Amino acid sequence: MVSLFDLRKSAVVVIDVYRATSAITAALASGVKEVIPVGTVEEAKAYKAKGFLAAAERKGAVVKGFDLGNSPIALSQAEHKGKSIVLTTSNGTKALLKTEGAKEVIIASFLNEQAVVNYLAEHHNNVIFLCAGWKDRFNLEDTAVAGAISRGLEAKGWHTHCDSALAAMHLFDIAKDRMPEFMKNASHTTRLGHLGLSDDLAFCNRRNEYNIVPVYENGTIRLK
Amino acid sequence: MVSLFDLRKSAVVVIDVYRATSAITAALASGVKEVIPVGTVEEAKAYKAKGFLAAAERKGAVVKGFDLGNSPIALSQAEHKGKSIVLTTSNGTKALLKTEGAKEVIIASFLNEQAVVNYLAEHHNNVIFLCAGWKDRFNLEDTAVAGAISRGLEAKGWHTHCDSALAAMHLFDIAKDRMPEFMKNASHTTRLGHLGLSDDLAFCNRRNEYNIVPVYENGTIRLK
Repeated sequence: MVSLFDLRKSAVVVIDVYRATSAITAALASGVKEVIPVGTVEEAKAYKAKGFLAAAERKGAVVKGFDLGNSPIALSQAEHKGKSIVLTTSNGTKALLKTEGAKEVIIASFLNEQAVVNYLAEHHNNVIFLCAGWKDRFNLEDTAVAGAISRGLEAKGWHTHCDSALAAMHLFDIAKDRMPEFMKNASHTTRLGHLGLSDDLAFCNRRNEYNIVPVYENGTIRLK
Repeated sequence: MVSLFDLRKSAVVVIDVYRATSAITAALASGVKEVIPVGTVEEAKAYKAKGFLAAAERKGAVVKGFDLGNSPIALSQAEHKGKSIVLTTSNGTKALLKTEGAKEVIIASFLNEQAVVNYLAEHHNNVIFLCAGWKDRFNLEDTAVAGAISRGLEAKGWHTHCDSALAAMHLFDIAKDRMPEFMKNASHTTRLGHLGLSDDLAFCNRRNEYNIVPVYENGTIRLK
């Protein structure tokens, strides 16, 4: 639980790899100007009524009345270039809104893990991973991204005494060379696979597709 | 968080391997009649005043005014045979007191993991692991015990869709053939090692020392 930790002294890395933080990363890498995360469908609707491009996902599906959910493939289409996208999702945007007080809030996924490692090593000396999970529960895929970034930081001389970071690194070690196979048993892969989102999942499993670092500041996410 | 789960349909396996559940297992295996877990030092003192043998641990140390903490070596001495021991610990006994409503509450450690597997396979068809951790945080050693028992149940035909059980099994796979080495980086090993408790830790890492199943029922823990 993030409430157990003091965020003020740390960069906080938010991870919801299936699919919110992958979608945000892909959208910004593809020229979207900013992603504005909001907690509720009602807020997203209010922005939509004001003329914003708004995207809403609940239970893995696009919310009725919206054209976009949190598909990284859909959000990174060329037609969105230069636009602001308002986004609400089941778990990822809620996690983002829990980061108040953090030194800096960084959005991570497999798509930009090495860029996040490099940025942390250059600008910070302490990090907390906020894995969104599913309905407040642990999940494998977000933990694996935290493990990937932790191993990257270890290679840059960082170290940890935190058991959950150690466990995440061990899980990443097992997963890294056989990601799709490792993830196929994850509960969320099954859940989203049933919704016909296999292409999205394959996209989210791609590592270091983009050399960018999205940062959440003053209510919006932009590239640093 | 255990509050996320419906305990009524499940056996709950409580794990605080360093050291409460190892100590309870060792004590009962050595002839202690019962272990009565209490939440506070004050309750333990009240029992002591009534003539009970009482043990209290906080922050890894024996609480002032008590002769016993949660050392499995100390609690399994022959002199305690036939006695009731009242026990309060930092994390383990608190976890036990969160199990209200569970179908059955079983105490597990590396010392009796296979006995717990066999008992679950015979008497239950659903299990929730309640890992005590340290101050509500994840820890490696309790997770590894949950992984060991999960692998044992898998071998008996059980399966899981839960990511935390999958992760626990992966961690156990890495740990099982090099337990002391794997555990040496765990935060609690460092914490207790500094307190001169290395013998206790080595004892807690012994697998399947006892073929017994302690069960918590009506406020006390006895052998089933």
